Amino acid sequence: MIQTPYLLFLGDAPDGLAAKVAQGIKDWRPENCVGQFRMEGCKADLGLTDMTLAEAKAAGAKTLVVGVANRGGVISQSWKKVLVEALEEGFDLASGLHNLLRDEEDLAAVARATGRSLHDVRIPSVKYPIANGEKRTGKRLLAVGTDCSVGKMYTALAMDACMREKGMKSSFRATGQTGILITGDGVPLDAVVADFMAGSIEYLTPDNDADHWDIIEGQGSLFHVSYSGVTLALIHGGQPDALVICHEPSRAHMRGLPGYKLPSIEAVRDMALELARVANPACTVIGVSINTQHMSEEDSRAYCAEVEARVGLPCVDPYRHGADRLVEALAAV
Amino acid sequence: MIQTPYLLFLGDAPDGLAAKVAQGIKDWRPENCVGQFRMEGCKADLGLTDMTLAEAKAAGAKTLVVGVANRGGVISQSWKKVLVEALEEGFDLASGLHNLLRDEEDLAAVARATGRSLHDVRIPSVKYPIANGEKRTGKRLLAVGTDCSVGKMYTALAMDACMREKGMKSSFRATGQTGILITGDGVPLDAVVADFMAGSIEYLTPDNDADHWDIIEGQGSLFHVSYSGVTLALIHGGQPDALVICHEPSRAHMRGLPGYKLPSIEAVRDMALELARVANPACTVIGVSINTQHMSEEDSRAYCAEVEARVGLPCVDPYRHGADRLVEALAAV
Repeated sequence: MIQTPYLLFLGDAPDGLAAKVAQGIKDWRPENCVGQFRMEGCKADLGLTDMTLAEAKAAGAKTLVVGVANRGGVISQSWKKVLVEALEEGFDLASGLHNLLRDEEDLAAVARATGRSLHDVRIPSVKYPIANGEKRTGKRLLAVGTDCSVGKMYTALAMDACMREKGMKSSFRATGQTGILITGDGVPLDAVVADFMAGSIEYLTPDNDADHWDIIEGQGSLFHVSYSGVTLALIHGGQPDALVICHEPSRAHMRGLPGYKLPSIEAVRDMALELARVANPACTVIGVSINTQHMSEEDSRAYCAEVEARVGLPCVDPYRHGADRLVEALAAV
Repeated sequence: MIQTPYLLFLGDAPDGLAAKVAQGIKDWRPENCVGQFRMEGCKADLGLTDMTLAEAKAAGAKTLVVGVANRGGVISQSWKKVLVEALEEGFDLASGLHNLLRDEEDLAAVARATGRSLHDVRIPSVKYPIANGEKRTGKRLLAVGTDCSVGKMYTALAMDACMREKGMKSSFRATGQTGILITGDGVPLDAVVADFMAGSIEYLTPDNDADHWDIIEGQGSLFHVSYSGVTLALIHGGQPDALVICHEPSRAHMRGLPGYKLPSIEAVRDMALELARVANPACTVIGVSINTQHMSEEDSRAYCAEVEARVGLPCVDPYRHGADRLVEALAAV
């Protein structure tokens, strides 16, 4: 577990997109964010209070979270200076960067000397079991996508937020780096060794109250040949009671695979459901979530209505129009 | 690549089953086996010539292969003595044990001093790419199973042997520890990190002659919740032109999962084919391979005939009755 609240480090981000991890944390867990730390030349701005390390410390921040992508895979000397100071001031550090904090000798040395923790959420910190397939108490929803990066994490977060608002028992379960930084916990599934993938998801979503829902972040797609195995491990390790199908309508081809067309929403629904029923025969598909960020308001509503009529399931953009209808469908399961 | 030929180390195996890795090597690559090395009290016997290290060296053996399971996960001092001597006499060592040769300090030190290699095939030695899904030249068959350990490796090895006999171009492609020791090369898929699973299979089965077949060893099952993700990575990374369905009829439930019944051969055929066609729309199922080891000769023939009539595909036990009919079906693809 990463200690909250956070000070979000935006470094020298050249634009807002470079700080999208920080943006995600601020969007979904504003209560975890004490402020932002920006260096000279930073072009990103989350609208949080700019703070020095000392100010953030005084305001109660426990962890400095690297919420910005680094250029060329290098943690620069100008970043290092801040990260070292943060350790010295008593912050833990957390990062989802590919190059690990712990592999930076200077950071590792200062962390040892100060007794602070370096959280590299890119890689697992737990020895996961092999999945045993045993039925667990409580309920689980899994977001499955027609493709990678279609909005599965945002769908899960939006549903989780809506459920809490309604007083339902819900936990967002992160399976990727950004999700882990948002919640402070989770499984970095793409970095788990093959044999333990499904077991890591069983570990992530243990027995719970009968009326509690784990809202599990999806990864990849059954139809994305690079990552489909990861998706199936989620389906079988998660043993979901409910699936929500996620889609982004503007793609010309599968992400990173120019030769591969996107499957239809119906094809994903049918394939995911049949596979999910191996682990949980009672599984159902409760709705469709569309990422309409590239559409006008009018087009987005028309598109969702068209899909809803065609597929016969509630269809919304939960980020744009709210997750209520998806949550109502879930509550009926 | 592990250097051949081998001297097979049977250690102090308490019975033949403990030496099943060595048995597999001897069954499928007898030309790679110079002889066997047995210690005091060994109860296994492959029928190969018993040799000292010096005799095997003189006969041309390059690698001592640990072909026996160790008790309690410990490499005993009595084994160590032989393994150290083997390094000193100029042998490389190869092992599929869970505890790695390289983690034994004495072995690692002697290997460094003598310049010999320690091959731990349990874990990857290659940094695999992420799968790109691009169409490769040459053809590929993948063995898919109703369950784990139903005979996928033996089916693939039997088909490969039969194809070579007929003068067809074929390569058995190992994806598990025993297969890797048999052929000297392959991908230990269950130990590959999730993101790179499908890419490791693309790496294993690269472009080849148009009339060459990679015969890919399967792993797990789409219907085995612990390992299904590994199976799907094989299907999408292998982009097979042909599938052979493997089944063992005596199972009361899925291996290691008392609550899970086996799927029908037809369910596996349909699910595997639909998923395989994502990567290769031309994929077909060419036949069914039954592991009849627990049946009488009469029952085995009756069972295969029944399945063949029901499923409408050639159905044989290739280990018992030959792989000819499966290979003929493959040649017709």
